[in-house]
Amino acid sequence: MTRPEEIRIAVIGSGKMGSVHARNITRTPGARLVGVAGGSGADSLASRYGAGHLGIEGAFARRDIDAVVISSPNRFHADHIVRAVEGGKAVLVEKPVDLDLDRVDQCINDVGQASDRVVVAFNRRFDPSFAAVHHRILAGEIGAVEQLVIISRDPAPPPLEYVQTSGGLFRDMMIHDFDMARHLVGDIVSIQASSQTTDPDLGALGHATGAVATLTATSGALVTIVNSRSNATGYDQRTEAFGALGTLAVRNPTPTLVTASNRYGTHAGDPFITHYAERYSTAYRREIEHLVAVARGEEKPLATLHDGRAALVLALAAGESAASGGAAFGLLA
Amino acid sequence: MTRPEEIRIAVIGSGKMGSVHARNITRTPGARLVGVAGGSGADSLASRYGAGHLGIEGAFARRDIDAVVISSPNRFHADHIVRAVEGGKAVLVEKPVDLDLDRVDQCINDVGQASDRVVVAFNRRFDPSFAAVHHRILAGEIGAVEQLVIISRDPAPPPLEYVQTSGGLFRDMMIHDFDMARHLVGDIVSIQASSQTTDPDLGALGHATGAVATLTATSGALVTIVNSRSNATGYDQRTEAFGALGTLAVRNPTPTLVTASNRYGTHAGDPFITHYAERYSTAYRREIEHLVAVARGEEKPLATLHDGRAALVLALAAGESAASGGAAFGLLA
Amino acid sequence: MTRPEEIRIAVIGSGKMGSVHARNITRTPGARLVGVAGGSGADSLASRYGAGHLGIEGAFARRDIDAVVISSPNRFHADHIVRAVEGGKAVLVEKPVDLDLDRVDQCINDVGQASDRVVVAFNRRFDPSFAAVHHRILAGEIGAVEQLVIISRDPAPPPLEYVQTSGGLFRDMMIHDFDMARHLVGDIVSIQASSQTTDPDLGALGHATGAVATLTATSGALVTIVNSRSNATGYDQRTEAFGALGTLAVRNPTPTLVTASNRYGTHAGDPFITHYAERYSTAYRREIEHLVAVARGEEKPLATLHDGRAALVLALAAGESAASGGAAFGLLA
Amino acid sequence: MTRPEEIRIAVIGSGKMGSVHARNITRTPGARLVGVAGGSGADSLASRYGAGHLGIEGAFARRDIDAVVISSPNRFHADHIVRAVEGGKAVLVEKPVDLDLDRVDQCINDVGQASDRVVVAFNRRFDPSFAAVHHRILAGEIGAVEQLVIISRDPAPPPLEYVQTSGGLFRDMMIHDFDMARHLVGDIVSIQASSQTTDPDLGALGHATGAVATLTATSGALVTIVNSRSNATGYDQRTEAFGALGTLAVRNPTPTLVTASNRYGTHAGDPFITHYAERYSTAYRREIEHLVAVARGEEKPLATLHDGRAALVLALAAGESAASGGAAFGLLA
Repeated sequence: MTRPEEIRIAVIGSGKMGSVHARNITRTPGARLVGVAGGSGADSLASRYGAGHLGIEGAFARRDIDAVVISSPNRFHADHIVRAVEGGKAVLVEKPVDLDLDRVDQCINDVGQASDRVVVAFNRRFDPSFAAVHHRILAGEIGAVEQLVIISRDPAPPPLEYVQTSGGLFRDMMIHDFDMARHLVGDIVSIQASSQTTDPDLGALGHATGAVATLTATSGALVTIVNSRSNATGYDQRTEAFGALGTLAVRNPTPTLVTASNRYGTHAGDPFITHYAERYSTAYRREIEHLVAVARGEEKPLATLHDGRAALVLALAAGESAASGGAAFGLLA
Repeated sequence: MTRPEEIRIAVIGSGKMGSVHARNITRTPGARLVGVAGGSGADSLASRYGAGHLGIEGAFARRDIDAVVISSPNRFHADHIVRAVEGGKAVLVEKPVDLDLDRVDQCINDVGQASDRVVVAFNRRFDPSFAAVHHRILAGEIGAVEQLVIISRDPAPPPLEYVQTSGGLFRDMMIHDFDMARHLVGDIVSIQASSQTTDPDLGALGHATGAVATLTATSGALVTIVNSRSNATGYDQRTEAFGALGTLAVRNPTPTLVTASNRYGTHAGDPFITHYAERYSTAYRREIEHLVAVARGEEKPLATLHDGRAALVLALAAGESAASGGAAFGLLA
Repeated sequence: MTRPEEIRIAVIGSGKMGSVHARNITRTPGARLVGVAGGSGADSLASRYGAGHLGIEGAFARRDIDAVVISSPNRFHADHIVRAVEGGKAVLVEKPVDLDLDRVDQCINDVGQASDRVVVAFNRRFDPSFAAVHHRILAGEIGAVEQLVIISRDPAPPPLEYVQTSGGLFRDMMIHDFDMARHLVGDIVSIQASSQTTDPDLGALGHATGAVATLTATSGALVTIVNSRSNATGYDQRTEAFGALGTLAVRNPTPTLVTASNRYGTHAGDPFITHYAERYSTAYRREIEHLVAVARGEEKPLATLHDGRAALVLALAAGESAASGGAAFGLLA
Repeated sequence: MTRPEEIRIAVIGSGKMGSVHARNITRTPGARLVGVAGGSGADSLASRYGAGHLGIEGAFARRDIDAVVISSPNRFHADHIVRAVEGGKAVLVEKPVDLDLDRVDQCINDVGQASDRVVVAFNRRFDPSFAAVHHRILAGEIGAVEQLVIISRDPAPPPLEYVQTSGGLFRDMMIHDFDMARHLVGDIVSIQASSQTTDPDLGALGHATGAVATLTATSGALVTIVNSRSNATGYDQRTEAFGALGTLAVRNPTPTLVTASNRYGTHAGDPFITHYAERYSTAYRREIEHLVAVARGEEKPLATLHDGRAALVLALAAGESAASGGAAFGLLA
């Protein structure tokens, strides 16, 4: 048996997620970090792992690079996807494809047939627990999903400057839940959303700090999503799928497995893990393994550009519903 | 100190809840079961506890009866409330006051000042766990409630004949959740609801088997309610209140405290308790204790006719929203 | 179908357990509280339920009494059992039968064939959770029990005066665990025990506040028992049976089903229930139901005088082992 | 600030644990894998990480190697420790130091003052949950530990050939629990143990498959340890420390965070993690980080040769007690 060729990968972007991906590439069997491009930290990040500091042009052009991870700022994603595909590379791109639907459509059009080599990094799909719920639903364990409740709460709001370029709660945060909803119950036909603001600074800028959305799927399933930008207990990411035969739920991890009891009661554990990089560390490793498999033609993208577009459509419709008090229908992709 | 006079109570109605209340009256210190009136089982129920079989007229008229429990069919509630109050009695009445808002308003008008002696039996308010969440919210443990998620699922749909006179899912089942929402976050200003049908028999009659509602409170809190008429695991009644300082949640009880583990995993317990009479046995006892205290003038009703009306208003608005796809506003009582 | 005759019951003893039993008799279908005898509270207790204040002699002699509950001080138990049986009554007797083995043997001898009408009130056998573990073991769910771990901790030591007449930790407290061990794994062939004292007052009197015992069953099963006279979290009563196919465990109940989470972590519940009368309320009710069934000849005693004797033998052996540092063998009954 | 010198590490032994350590060295900041020595897999293991295939002599002699990880067969541990120390290296050695107490004493004597550079790899001390219990006990959260219950069960017995050279259950398996007991409650003064055999193949060779031990600490604390060579639910490693102020417990992890409920009940999770390499993956990483810190003189060994000796003394005494039915006293180190 011959060993598969090593997949040579470049990382575009040297921020937090770029660093996470670069480290994981060095730890993934069959993957090699060739270089890092873009951002003021690219040189330092590359040298930490003995890789090269690339120009962005070079990363897309070099023939000896098989795949790229796109962790550049959001506004470059669509362009970088197209150029990477033109360079013959497999792609893992952070969400969103773009905040603007027209640009996403243009990107999809430009990518064309190569879309089966582009993975959108909806990280929760790669998490072992969410993946297990997905697989167990497909295996029929609870019958058809009739109701889905998703609760996502972040430990604290992001910095004001980030919020202002993020596209708002629906496109920045709830987009993950929209994708998970579609992953678990399929296409969505209508959505109603309400939002609230409890942070004066964010409120003054017109940004929501919490929201609730109700979705109806083609299948008839009802989906409820609850979001908050802050949560005293930490990173809270739960999902509960309900069908005629039972319920499957994902609960929150804690840093240790210690339980304490005393005269005040029983304490089941520490606060939840407070950072996404820790909560989804396995998911991020699996994203790279998946990219390697997609680059080799062994797997189809677990989340496609089409999935990225569909989640954005829902986010835009949710924003309109929350603003108008009405519901949006006819969302079926 | 003189011991308070015993409160003499008659039960109107001899169905399931009439039986529960009659037994609890015999076990409540300070309460005495004088008699049972109404329904084909009244004689048998009365004799089981050595009480008299009363005529309904007599129950309301007799001077030596201090309080009545109204467990008659829904359509008699409003009339029985008024007559009991006219007879000078304290009242515990099963929900709903009536399915028709005009009749509720007429009842409230007729009762007038005596409303501080009429308790609507929203049983969950009397449950130790839901009551603890209420008290801990009032004590400021989690700050102002920002989000509230209520999940209520029954083990199985009621008989078709019951469903047809029940007023439908919103007035029959979700009305408990509307009351709990108001109990925990105060007045509601808007509501959106969606329903679904997974049971062909109920669907053919135009009845929903599941529903989701999103409510906005005057306080700005967002409330989500999820209902299903059936649930494989049994009676599922959860509530989770979220505020800036933390979360308070009520989980489901199980019949025993046994945990099993084997090669398939760890099993946290039996199915949930499957009958409301068992799930809320403590609540039903507390309802009678509360009725005794209200009859003595020691306590104000924990749930008033006004609360019964407000929950009905929400149920009606939810039904309209689910039918029209729109939201209802201006619900503030 | 004719309804079974009502079983007429007298309670001997008017302390805490006498009160619990008297009330439960009034609430048990098919049982009637005829009277209460013995103790300064007998008159008041009897009148609370409209029953008679009996002399002890009368209670044993009256022909219209079918059964007695013996809740008198420990030193009278053996005598009262014999006299009740001589009077033709079924018996429920609080543990211990006696603190002295010779007196227990004499009692068993005197009772003779009537022993199938004498129930020793090892309350845990009547608890739904411990009973479920027993039944599920018998049903083969975990295979033969190989290891059994029992942890019992009381909220706080009993009053000094009680401890001095209690027979010590092994005969007063761990005797319940010895009985549960025999109930779940059968006869015991050897025991080793160690004790400790953390309370200076009890230590000065030579009394242990904690102990550990290891037992070997005829079956080969190893049993571990851990006891403490005090526990900050409340009444802690757990059992875990381990076999080739899995594990069955009983966990502790809490007063409510509320879970809280905040920046300090997740709090699974209140302190455990702190009083045995509340923890075992269902078990005490079932004891009376069982007494009724035994009096009618419908059931055999769930715990016999022989079981009471066997638990005492283990308690005595444990005390000797803890004092000598050695093990006791040949305990097989 | 100058960056600390990289610590250059060789791995002795190329079996399972050698592979785990080699990989972790490549992922630990400040550590570098220089080479692998010993065993038929050394060449392949070394080349996987671009390291050299060393002779054992060379590994101990080379001046440019700062530390060694000793994962060779047990019978070589003591010799390899001494030679590594003579070569000036810091050492991480798998337990046991040796199965023979005299050889351990000789090893300690030979190592002399260099013992503060030798770490015995009792992995549980490095696990975040067990470490948290240790720290919280030291912080006084539960007061002085009065009782400690440790339950350790492996998924399945090791291969017969391994068992025969393992030194038996007490020296191979319970030795971890003896170390944890000493870590949490300090020195031990007496021990009693009982063993059992449920596997005919192991029984025919005189090997126990289960055991219980009771230890008394100098502090007065009572320790109970329960072991089984097999467990249907997987790898079961729990500890519960009890003091006057409360209890601290470590529960088992599961592969995912999924909970399922259906008509059979609520299932809290998958079977426990079934392999130590996965259960203790964080602990193994921390062992290497600790070795780096010890090599730099920044930390003292978390588990010393003396700790390794003390756990062996307890294992030997437990074996004697189980064989004789007696207790061993005077074990205080």
